[in-house]
Amino acid sequence: MVKLAWLNGVFLAADEARISPFDRGFLFADGVYEVTAVYDGRLIDLDLHLDRLERSLRELGFPTPPDRGEIAAVHRRLIVDNDIREGYIYLQVTRGAYGARDFAAPAIVRPTCFAFAEAKSLINTVAAREGLNIITTPDIRWARRDIKSTGLLAQALAKTQARNAGVDDAWMVGPDGFVTEGASANAWIVNQDGDIVTRELSSTILAGVTRARLSSALSDAGLRLQQRAFTLEEAVAAREAFSTSATALVAPVVRIDGLAIGSGRPGPVTRRLQGLYFSAIGADPARDAPWLFQES
Amino acid sequence: MVKLAWLNGVFLAADEARISPFDRGFLFADGVYEVTAVYDGRLIDLDLHLDRLERSLRELGFPTPPDRGEIAAVHRRLIVDNDIREGYIYLQVTRGAYGARDFAAPAIVRPTCFAFAEAKSLINTVAAREGLNIITTPDIRWARRDIKSTGLLAQALAKTQARNAGVDDAWMVGPDGFVTEGASANAWIVNQDGDIVTRELSSTILAGVTRARLSSALSDAGLRLQQRAFTLEEAVAAREAFSTSATALVAPVVRIDGLAIGSGRPGPVTRRLQGLYFSAIGADPARDAPWLFQES
Repeated sequence: MVKLAWLNGVFLAADEARISPFDRGFLFADGVYEVTAVYDGRLIDLDLHLDRLERSLRELGFPTPPDRGEIAAVHRRLIVDNDIREGYIYLQVTRGAYGARDFAAPAIVRPTCFAFAEAKSLINTVAAREGLNIITTPDIRWARRDIKSTGLLAQALAKTQARNAGVDDAWMVGPDGFVTEGASANAWIVNQDGDIVTRELSSTILAGVTRARLSSALSDAGLRLQQRAFTLEEAVAAREAFSTSATALVAPVVRIDGLAIGSGRPGPVTRRLQGLYFSAIGADPARDAPWLFQES
Repeated sequence: MVKLAWLNGVFLAADEARISPFDRGFLFADGVYEVTAVYDGRLIDLDLHLDRLERSLRELGFPTPPDRGEIAAVHRRLIVDNDIREGYIYLQVTRGAYGARDFAAPAIVRPTCFAFAEAKSLINTVAAREGLNIITTPDIRWARRDIKSTGLLAQALAKTQARNAGVDDAWMVGPDGFVTEGASANAWIVNQDGDIVTRELSSTILAGVTRARLSSALSDAGLRLQQRAFTLEEAVAAREAFSTSATALVAPVVRIDGLAIGSGRPGPVTRRLQGLYFSAIGADPARDAPWLFQES
């Protein structure tokens, strides 16, 4: 099947989409993006993603965001036309092209808007069932990680380093020894006191939509969350660890830099939170995530 | 005249150049660039620029750089076909497109190579004659500023902030109070002892080609250079300040954050260094930069 994408108001074959190399997204990484999960053909938390997109654009001084109704309709049509049951929609907005290159952004812009759909298993994955083996890398990113910009070179290098090391992913650690977040996920631990801990929101991390939804879900279930930074040492000594992101959902982390976390298997709290999150997005854990109910 | 560019081996009208939005340069800022000045129809220090390009690509793990002979020939043809006497050639190399989006870089790539030419006065400019009025901004960039990557959002924001403030440019200051560099230039001062000072090379700044050439030229002229970091306070208290870059060459800085540097006019050391640099690139200061010989 030909993959269908959307570019500046036009639906077209993804392979035929073309932009100018003068696009500020290409010349300066002057753009932002969102990845919204699709489960059972439905968009998960699209409103929260579009809220964050609009915030990112405001922080970068874009005059007006793209029309929200149109963007939502594009998301829905990409799901239908690409027959996506489980997967994601990617959306990128940049400050556009005007045939020249000046660092200073022009006052009036015609943004470039690009979206595509990808089918992908989200719930019943090897990562969700067996957990991730990750490495850590120094967090060398810029200081505004709260803006979801396409300046992702540090993250791409971290993920490439992980793949080259034969592991699944990377968490990033600041020069102060505190974990910031994963290369494309928020980082969480369950410490030896049983506290569920994830870093508080600030410009040092992205305000994850999955992070927000899981926070609500665990609060609704009577669990408490500590929002504070934790060190790599604390993570390695934790009972459990996991990552959250729009497409990995709640992914157990079972090994960090070669060291087993807890038993080296996904732990009971992580399993419970997977179940809570799967339910929150409308899945049926008993049917869709049977491994949650097996003896480990 | 139609501006001619070059994209992946093909010369074409710049306005007709098109790339895929799946290009990793667009999705991840996974690319590097160089800007080489053209003076009197000649390329200034192309070899140094291509050395740096190849180093940037190596640091990012690109398997092989583009063919150096071909890239040099492209530069020369863009000068001729665009009839550039004074200006620059822009070159960008990214990890290319493969119709999908994965953070981890694919093992085998077909890089995207893009180049265009722009006519622009370099020597006899208002900035060179009268100096720059600049602001300073916190340096929020990533930690690998020695790689000339297209992850330039922080620099674009700094330049946009400068323009919105009604000034010419911005210098960036680290959280430690030390100036790192300009938004697209290296930063220099002449302090109250008459020392010429610019920051030493490290991953905190880009190893400027103009910086290197001016360093040689001043050494040849019997002047001494101190390579060390200086604070914003030291800069504001300096006798003179200036920026160096491939297209601004040696640009006096006469005002920082509203405060006059020295007399508030380009100083004698900066004037002398302009003359040395203009001579080094084959210009005749008496003919091309007559203001250097006028009483200030």
